Amino acid sequence: MKSRKLRAGMIGGGIGAFIGAVHRIALRMDGLVELTAGAFSSKAETAMASGAQLMLDEARTYTDYVTMLEQEADMPADQRLDFICIVTPNHLHFAPVMLALEKGFHVVVDKPVAFSLEEAKAIQTKVAATGLLFLLTHTYTGYPMLKQARQLLASGVMGTIRKVYVEYPQGWLSTLLEATGQTQASWRTDPERSGAAGAMGDIGTHAFNLAEYVSGLQVTELCAAVNIVVPGRRLDDDGEVLLRFSNGATGVLMATQVAAGEENNVRVRIYGEHGGIEWMQEAANTLLVKWADKPTEVYRAGTGYLAGVAGHNCRTPAGHPEGYLEAFANLYRNFALALLARINGTVPEPAWLDFPGAEEGVRGMAFINNVLRSSGATEKWTSFTI
Amino acid sequence: MKSRKLRAGMIGGGIGAFIGAVHRIALRMDGLVELTAGAFSSKAETAMASGAQLMLDEARTYTDYVTMLEQEADMPADQRLDFICIVTPNHLHFAPVMLALEKGFHVVVDKPVAFSLEEAKAIQTKVAATGLLFLLTHTYTGYPMLKQARQLLASGVMGTIRKVYVEYPQGWLSTLLEATGQTQASWRTDPERSGAAGAMGDIGTHAFNLAEYVSGLQVTELCAAVNIVVPGRRLDDDGEVLLRFSNGATGVLMATQVAAGEENNVRVRIYGEHGGIEWMQEAANTLLVKWADKPTEVYRAGTGYLAGVAGHNCRTPAGHPEGYLEAFANLYRNFALALLARINGTVPEPAWLDFPGAEEGVRGMAFINNVLRSSGATEKWTSFTI
Amino acid sequence: MKSRKLRAGMIGGGIGAFIGAVHRIALRMDGLVELTAGAFSSKAETAMASGAQLMLDEARTYTDYVTMLEQEADMPADQRLDFICIVTPNHLHFAPVMLALEKGFHVVVDKPVAFSLEEAKAIQTKVAATGLLFLLTHTYTGYPMLKQARQLLASGVMGTIRKVYVEYPQGWLSTLLEATGQTQASWRTDPERSGAAGAMGDIGTHAFNLAEYVSGLQVTELCAAVNIVVPGRRLDDDGEVLLRFSNGATGVLMATQVAAGEENNVRVRIYGEHGGIEWMQEAANTLLVKWADKPTEVYRAGTGYLAGVAGHNCRTPAGHPEGYLEAFANLYRNFALALLARINGTVPEPAWLDFPGAEEGVRGMAFINNVLRSSGATEKWTSFTI
Amino acid sequence: MKSRKLRAGMIGGGIGAFIGAVHRIALRMDGLVELTAGAFSSKAETAMASGAQLMLDEARTYTDYVTMLEQEADMPADQRLDFICIVTPNHLHFAPVMLALEKGFHVVVDKPVAFSLEEAKAIQTKVAATGLLFLLTHTYTGYPMLKQARQLLASGVMGTIRKVYVEYPQGWLSTLLEATGQTQASWRTDPERSGAAGAMGDIGTHAFNLAEYVSGLQVTELCAAVNIVVPGRRLDDDGEVLLRFSNGATGVLMATQVAAGEENNVRVRIYGEHGGIEWMQEAANTLLVKWADKPTEVYRAGTGYLAGVAGHNCRTPAGHPEGYLEAFANLYRNFALALLARINGTVPEPAWLDFPGAEEGVRGMAFINNVLRSSGATEKWTSFTI
Repeated sequence: MKSRKLRAGMIGGGIGAFIGAVHRIALRMDGLVELTAGAFSSKAETAMASGAQLMLDEARTYTDYVTMLEQEADMPADQRLDFICIVTPNHLHFAPVMLALEKGFHVVVDKPVAFSLEEAKAIQTKVAATGLLFLLTHTYTGYPMLKQARQLLASGVMGTIRKVYVEYPQGWLSTLLEATGQTQASWRTDPERSGAAGAMGDIGTHAFNLAEYVSGLQVTELCAAVNIVVPGRRLDDDGEVLLRFSNGATGVLMATQVAAGEENNVRVRIYGEHGGIEWMQEAANTLLVKWADKPTEVYRAGTGYLAGVAGHNCRTPAGHPEGYLEAFANLYRNFALALLARINGTVPEPAWLDFPGAEEGVRGMAFINNVLRSSGATEKWTSFTI
Repeated sequence: MKSRKLRAGMIGGGIGAFIGAVHRIALRMDGLVELTAGAFSSKAETAMASGAQLMLDEARTYTDYVTMLEQEADMPADQRLDFICIVTPNHLHFAPVMLALEKGFHVVVDKPVAFSLEEAKAIQTKVAATGLLFLLTHTYTGYPMLKQARQLLASGVMGTIRKVYVEYPQGWLSTLLEATGQTQASWRTDPERSGAAGAMGDIGTHAFNLAEYVSGLQVTELCAAVNIVVPGRRLDDDGEVLLRFSNGATGVLMATQVAAGEENNVRVRIYGEHGGIEWMQEAANTLLVKWADKPTEVYRAGTGYLAGVAGHNCRTPAGHPEGYLEAFANLYRNFALALLARINGTVPEPAWLDFPGAEEGVRGMAFINNVLRSSGATEKWTSFTI
Repeated sequence: MKSRKLRAGMIGGGIGAFIGAVHRIALRMDGLVELTAGAFSSKAETAMASGAQLMLDEARTYTDYVTMLEQEADMPADQRLDFICIVTPNHLHFAPVMLALEKGFHVVVDKPVAFSLEEAKAIQTKVAATGLLFLLTHTYTGYPMLKQARQLLASGVMGTIRKVYVEYPQGWLSTLLEATGQTQASWRTDPERSGAAGAMGDIGTHAFNLAEYVSGLQVTELCAAVNIVVPGRRLDDDGEVLLRFSNGATGVLMATQVAAGEENNVRVRIYGEHGGIEWMQEAANTLLVKWADKPTEVYRAGTGYLAGVAGHNCRTPAGHPEGYLEAFANLYRNFALALLARINGTVPEPAWLDFPGAEEGVRGMAFINNVLRSSGATEKWTSFTI
Repeated sequence: MKSRKLRAGMIGGGIGAFIGAVHRIALRMDGLVELTAGAFSSKAETAMASGAQLMLDEARTYTDYVTMLEQEADMPADQRLDFICIVTPNHLHFAPVMLALEKGFHVVVDKPVAFSLEEAKAIQTKVAATGLLFLLTHTYTGYPMLKQARQLLASGVMGTIRKVYVEYPQGWLSTLLEATGQTQASWRTDPERSGAAGAMGDIGTHAFNLAEYVSGLQVTELCAAVNIVVPGRRLDDDGEVLLRFSNGATGVLMATQVAAGEENNVRVRIYGEHGGIEWMQEAANTLLVKWADKPTEVYRAGTGYLAGVAGHNCRTPAGHPEGYLEAFANLYRNFALALLARINGTVPEPAWLDFPGAEEGVRGMAFINNVLRSSGATEKWTSFTI
């Protein structure tokens, strides 16, 4: 019996933040979760103003996350937060994630999971030890047509996978935007806040996650060339990576933030012996299914012929486009359904458990490390190590 | 000061309903409204189960809407519903709309506004008399790129408008689906519940609304051919209408539910002396702006160069696609912002008032009447009368 | 034994003409025909200069077509022209067509076949009487993917055809271009040279031809609204027509030359009970095949799975786009193959005979007449008469 | 004074060959060239049958190319061939090219120019020594929208070029097609006939040529991974190459023949500081011109706003799609116009000289060598040497 909405508390995401607002829309969309508390900023004034703007109870608007986690942990069961969403810049993921887990809260955290691989591993260990649910918001895995692609490839109908092309072109950092003080650009290009990588951490990890998620394969070796294109920038804003996968497949990953004029058209193409799939975010409700010897099929979201897991992640009938926010909301919905099942002592459907977690977080951080190591190396191939 | 969320009550939209679920997602998306009460079905059991599934307070889950409106009207100001969403089939719009207005509630109602033109006019009169806010959910007007198109055409940069093509092709009624008992098909093809028209009421009114909204013109004459294509069907499932507009422009409206293989790709093309615009729902984040003597421009949602009103109706940066649910939510958001401004005694921004209301409802019902009159006539042209 | 190239003579198409140059490219493309003689202009100087530019034998460059037809008719069999291409403006089709047939030449003529329905009928009678081959260059029927569509619909796999939408939007006459003396605009908008109709004759007949060719149906009734949009113009530059077909199907034809910003994107959509087809010239190598209950299929030119007749009309493997000139050349190639078969006394393949002829010419002229009659009528429906 | 058609002789391209037929269509299209002689096959029977099918004079149909070149060289000036087209498999380019040049014929040769870099260099030296015209048919450079792109990038309006992505995905070699005896597959995968590389020579060189041609840059370093994907194949059928350009730009080249379901969708994307261009063969008449701060512009072939060189390479007005054969014919047309100018002693327009020649041939062969060297190396970066 789903007798109540889940209660969420948010860390970060105050007024002016981008991804915090997205998390809140995602969290609200299906009516399973209520944003109940928040420590939206380390600046007290911003924190309180954010809470007010979000029409939150003032008593549950905090000016620091430690206080929030401690006080909320002590609340009675019928008021206590169920889970914590952490949407701070990368360097501020680790501490609140660990404390939230410590206090027994389930956790949602924006990607990349942490500032370093070591942090990521520690989080993975902690998640395993506590047995709590953990969602890492690799948004793109929430798109139903990518779930359809994954399932189709897993079914073997295309034979062994041979090629994986994944690309993530953006253009918004074509100028030294951080010099203007723009918030997003400032922290994402700052090694103190973003981590060892810029573009590779911000969007390369998404592309990497997609490559592995949709193909069902793991990268075992790579050869990376990572660049700082815009003079004066402190972190990479561009790069490309040759990939080798566990089954012998090969591929290419391209991620750039200096492709001036590009928006955010993540795209993945995977080919097996008998055909291939193509998906891109600009046409997110469409999956092209290509065949060696017959016409390409255009799979569409919301149709009756989708595999169960893809259909489960659609809200509207065919032809009523869903987008980025719905993909994001799918992560939350599945996490919430899994959590409600746990609370209610029922068995979750497999589709509810299909969301990225700590393992994906560790692999993403390892991707960053391996890419940077490879990019600095004179040898062509670098083993993917964790 | 937006000190609280608006409280909404819903009539209709119980378990299994399509559009009720859409309204709830739209209503939730921006955190401005809380679904507080509901009379989701005239069947008591369904009504209560729906409330439970939606995690509503049982005390505010009603088994008939009259009771809901009466009891809620008597609640203290800090608990009383602010507005009522009416998402019942067409023949059940009028009575609850009128009672809600009578009781002083602002109203949201799904389109078409009523069962007949006479009802629509009575509603328009009532809305005017009460001064309450009234939102008719012609979803497509919520798309930011259509707002951009409207503004661009209104600016005069394309000169006088000459041609308006609007089409709404669906295929889901290619078979006698209602014979299988399918819920949506059953009521939409039933003259007792849907009204005088089938496809023309269901989707033709959307197309008509778009034609007038985006062009800024009004239809003055039309020539319609309306068909029942699938044998055994009781209402039209297909038709086309030649249009003449107030400024001398001409056009075509096509709406069909028997274009087998089509989903819901509403499309509008409008041409002036110097260029034209094209938009279709399958690529909802794109507006093609065509010019007689230079390259077509691809306007995109979420970009910095959008006109203010279009930008206001975007939630995400360029390249993060928004869709049908966000367009729907834009109607609710603007309605809610306007209502909050009224409650708070502040001046609403013009963009907040840009949502369809009673007048559009009356024109939509008049469209149905005029189309059916024309379709049955031997004369070519029928004046658009209200 | 195809022991020689066919010899063609051209009437019209001198320096500066548009369609004459297209005919010549089409005629050359497959190496089956040689342009051997020409009367390219009624102005002697232009005629001779055109011949020289085309590197034609001066002895076979004529300054009037009557002389050409007479002299060429008297040539010995091994030099005599096989067929005549007539690419003059509409008002100058009839006389040379009739004389060419009279003299025993096979004929290719640009569309529309003549200046009036009466002329068209006379031509049809003459063609029948002489038994000569006659090609009317309705270019679009030369596209392989439309042949695929026709064959697919004819196979019955989509059930009875219900809807036919065909549109032909252009924008090049959005201004009073003829006032500048532009050649194409001048004769096409001149009732003395173009005929009773402007846009409806120039492009409406193409759309009409496509609707009937691809569907395999015939129009039996129509309801037209034809407009002169640009002030000062003498012939229609825009219009729309509701259609009723022989089998009960209905449809819409839209043709305009004042959709500013549009190029030439002819588009046809036809729906049966179980699915539909969509083709547009901007993506000419693709045919969308839509189904009520499974993914849309993307048929592509040059693939192995095409029906024989479509494959026969492709020159390159899949992915090597062919276009307008190849479609045009397909008409010539099929005509030439059929003619060579006749010359060689062999049996032509059915695919070679699949080109438009005198009957299509008569129906096209009848379309113009019926549309104009309907547009001027107060009754809604006009029977399609010949 | 263009008083006559150029006379061409062809070596290779007999019945059943693919590219020979394409060359002939290209050569015919604009009426500047006549195929006058041929040595279409080393098999006498095929050679003669091919000549007959092409309606060639039997006296000028040869059974070996040496005889052809010798006899034709001795013909009187008014009959002598002007140029020779060599369309044999790669291993049979060098000897006829050298002999043709030796005999004083201008030369057209299919790409890659030769079997090895050494041969290519020898050809380049010979071309320089003889001063004869030399066309290497890198088809894609014949597309007008790529010429527009090149000119736009060269103008500097997009600032310094930063990124170059070029890809050439095919799927036709996804199976061991050569084992079935299929002609194209057989020689292209045979090291004795194709050369050191398979896919990299066949299509990688096209991609490489495009990257350099459109960007106006030269590759200076690369890092390649080349694969034999299909078991039993003897040459690479897949690979990817990281690129570094002369101005510091970086990029990626992907070429594969095992992307099952792909046709031939060559695609190039190049980004400068302020925007980028995107072109793909499947939409060959469109060039996307993207900007950092304003809407993407859709440049279209045949429009009035194209730069002169692009306009010169269009035959039809906007909206009448041209394709692969027209691109190919543009190479021939420009070559022919340049040759006619030389014959007539006039000054060729710069646009006529814009066709690939011996230098592109040498760079293409060097690309193959460098790619293979890099692919076998353990160091990441390999200098591009010639």
